[in-house]
Amino acid sequence: MGLQKRKGLNRINNSGGDLVNTERLWSDLQELGKIGFVEGEGVTRLALSDADIAAKEWLTKRMKEAGLEVHMDAATNVIGKLKSATVRDSKIVAVGSHLDTVPQGGRFDGALGVLAGLECARVLQEKKIGLPWDLEIINFSDEEASHNAGTVGSRAMMGTLSRDEIYRSKEKGVPTFAEDMKRLGKDPDRIGEAIRSPKMFKALLELHIEQGSLLEARGIDIGAVTGIVGIYRYSVEVLGKTDHAGTTPMSLRDDALVKAAPIFTLLPQWVKARNREMVGTIGQIGLEPGATNVVPGKCMCTVELRSMKPEDMAAIRDLLREWVGKHKGSSIKTIYEKDSVELLKPVIDTIVRAAEIEGLSVIRMVSGAGHDSQSFAPYVPTGMIFVPSRGGKSHCPEEWTDAQQAANGCRVLLRTILELAGQDSTP
Amino acid sequence: MGLQKRKGLNRINNSGGDLVNTERLWSDLQELGKIGFVEGEGVTRLALSDADIAAKEWLTKRMKEAGLEVHMDAATNVIGKLKSATVRDSKIVAVGSHLDTVPQGGRFDGALGVLAGLECARVLQEKKIGLPWDLEIINFSDEEASHNAGTVGSRAMMGTLSRDEIYRSKEKGVPTFAEDMKRLGKDPDRIGEAIRSPKMFKALLELHIEQGSLLEARGIDIGAVTGIVGIYRYSVEVLGKTDHAGTTPMSLRDDALVKAAPIFTLLPQWVKARNREMVGTIGQIGLEPGATNVVPGKCMCTVELRSMKPEDMAAIRDLLREWVGKHKGSSIKTIYEKDSVELLKPVIDTIVRAAEIEGLSVIRMVSGAGHDSQSFAPYVPTGMIFVPSRGGKSHCPEEWTDAQQAANGCRVLLRTILELAGQDSTP
Repeated sequence: MGLQKRKGLNRINNSGGDLVNTERLWSDLQELGKIGFVEGEGVTRLALSDADIAAKEWLTKRMKEAGLEVHMDAATNVIGKLKSATVRDSKIVAVGSHLDTVPQGGRFDGALGVLAGLECARVLQEKKIGLPWDLEIINFSDEEASHNAGTVGSRAMMGTLSRDEIYRSKEKGVPTFAEDMKRLGKDPDRIGEAIRSPKMFKALLELHIEQGSLLEARGIDIGAVTGIVGIYRYSVEVLGKTDHAGTTPMSLRDDALVKAAPIFTLLPQWVKARNREMVGTIGQIGLEPGATNVVPGKCMCTVELRSMKPEDMAAIRDLLREWVGKHKGSSIKTIYEKDSVELLKPVIDTIVRAAEIEGLSVIRMVSGAGHDSQSFAPYVPTGMIFVPSRGGKSHCPEEWTDAQQAANGCRVLLRTILELAGQDSTP
Repeated sequence: MGLQKRKGLNRINNSGGDLVNTERLWSDLQELGKIGFVEGEGVTRLALSDADIAAKEWLTKRMKEAGLEVHMDAATNVIGKLKSATVRDSKIVAVGSHLDTVPQGGRFDGALGVLAGLECARVLQEKKIGLPWDLEIINFSDEEASHNAGTVGSRAMMGTLSRDEIYRSKEKGVPTFAEDMKRLGKDPDRIGEAIRSPKMFKALLELHIEQGSLLEARGIDIGAVTGIVGIYRYSVEVLGKTDHAGTTPMSLRDDALVKAAPIFTLLPQWVKARNREMVGTIGQIGLEPGATNVVPGKCMCTVELRSMKPEDMAAIRDLLREWVGKHKGSSIKTIYEKDSVELLKPVIDTIVRAAEIEGLSVIRMVSGAGHDSQSFAPYVPTGMIFVPSRGGKSHCPEEWTDAQQAANGCRVLLRTILELAGQDSTP
């Protein structure tokens, strides 16, 4: 039967990848994109908000129509299972991403990965293609950090989510994940029931928009992701002395902004000098008291570093600490230090081959953004497929990937599933 | 009778300045300081707020108790008049300042000037000291810019307040001065009725806390203000390109903060190099979109310059414009350019002499902060008296001037009034 299956798969390989229904996938993306959409403001589906709950319900309905068995786990992840009549292996292959968005985000980030998984399941059903294992399509909850940190659902599943975290919100006025779980009838104290053994998974696959401009700039169809960068985040405070801006001579001032300013230009210099692949960003800044006519007594800013190499991020962090140490009363606090993960070479190779079979151009590349895959990669064979983002734009209403590009990603995803099945089916 | 009065004044001169009741003045300051006070947050009496209206009512009552004729003019200024039985001149001498505060301000800024005026009127009444003119004590409305720009009441009186201004608020959600006037039954369209001819005024005197640390640092009791600095304010925008902080390589970035950063250190350098007396401040700064993981596409900041010399401020403005011109898409907007005013030498000389008569140390100095006096100085002989501010602190709960220092200012104010009366009484 394994051999028979293998032959069946070969037949499909030769069909030239016309299995994916481009229009159906695109129409799903457009329909889902209406949930939480406001003209001029893009899509806002904060995790476990009304809009996100509506999206979960919409997906559940769509999955059931496609013949999947659907349930919501203890961490509010929505899981649709395609039972295979030809199962030979108790493990499963999962295709996952997320339907929640940042405030005023786009229609593709996360959504493409879930809907492409659904499309693959539909094709497999329609064409009666049996797989050696069951296939799961997963909508992971709160990837975008609406409540506190992100990738909540995928970390809950891998058992790496700390309990405290769901009871803390990132700022005053923002509900905790635990509070919002109750909206779906889930008991926060039982979130541990969402944990699944990594051994249950044959592989996790995630199709995602690139959110950068590398593929577009090089005219490449597909990125086979080799790793996801680590992220180190800090908050820096530089103290001076608050004074009246009219009555305090320049010579008597201790202006926190003037003291902090060099770091704004030093940081990019340090990062560029260290490693061309690393990035460093100061994206938030604040002055206290923050009035036109008051000499600032405090300057706060965030510093974010991303790289595949922890030693490079640590080196920049040490330079920052040294700099802060020279300014009395100033301080640096670690928000978090999350190391990079490498994806599994055999899975990456399978994705590259899948793209080649589909006749698409492909490169191996690093992901500069965090993803649910990151939660799985240390424990489960994990692969990510990137498709181009127009202008590299993401997390904004202008986020865009063409219907054909989206379908390309879906074809590579399906072909990867079939290739993995073929590998397993080889006697 | 003129000569007789002159003799009377001489007798008072010799009494050694024990006319002012230090405790009564201090008790008034403390009592007024309770209106709008919140523990740990200081005094908040935004102009025409409930607290400011309560302060106006409290003052009116106090003035009436002191025998003054009180009315509120068409611009909501509260004016108490001490009619003199010995009037020889139809002009008046006014003592004015303000009872409104900034948010979370102190008990002395503005309040001292009004209450010291009240104390002077009380002493003159009690000691039956006749003056050659009527004396007015004025509480000018909205000096602190609660609605839009500041010094509203004093400019309304001098006829230099533009009509539009009272119908505009400085930001969304803040009521206009016109809206709030109605709370006191005043018709905004009739604010013009508050205009008085500068010729009506013999002089305007204002006692105020220094709001800087010069007097304290030098151990001096009294500052005789020679001029009030001009203020030029600008908002600067530097444009870059918003990008994902994870997926955009350093080499492809156009980071607005990195582009703007040099101006934070250049501005103080330019100012110091130009004129030791000038100050330049960047007190507000903002990034858009302002997220830890987004490369800033826009950096906004305010620039404020203060100096007695318009040509110096213009020179720094031109350097700023030149700098902005080098950064495509960046811009500088003028918020306002208000030139400095010089106070009248004979009035300054009188204040210096009054301090000397009172046995207090005195220096001539410039005011780095704006005041109601500024509205009068171009048209009316105007004098300002400064007393020390502890640590130079002002516009904050820690604002402090000792009872004795406050009384010193009041003594110089009273002595200045008597000196002016003496000059007028000389045959």
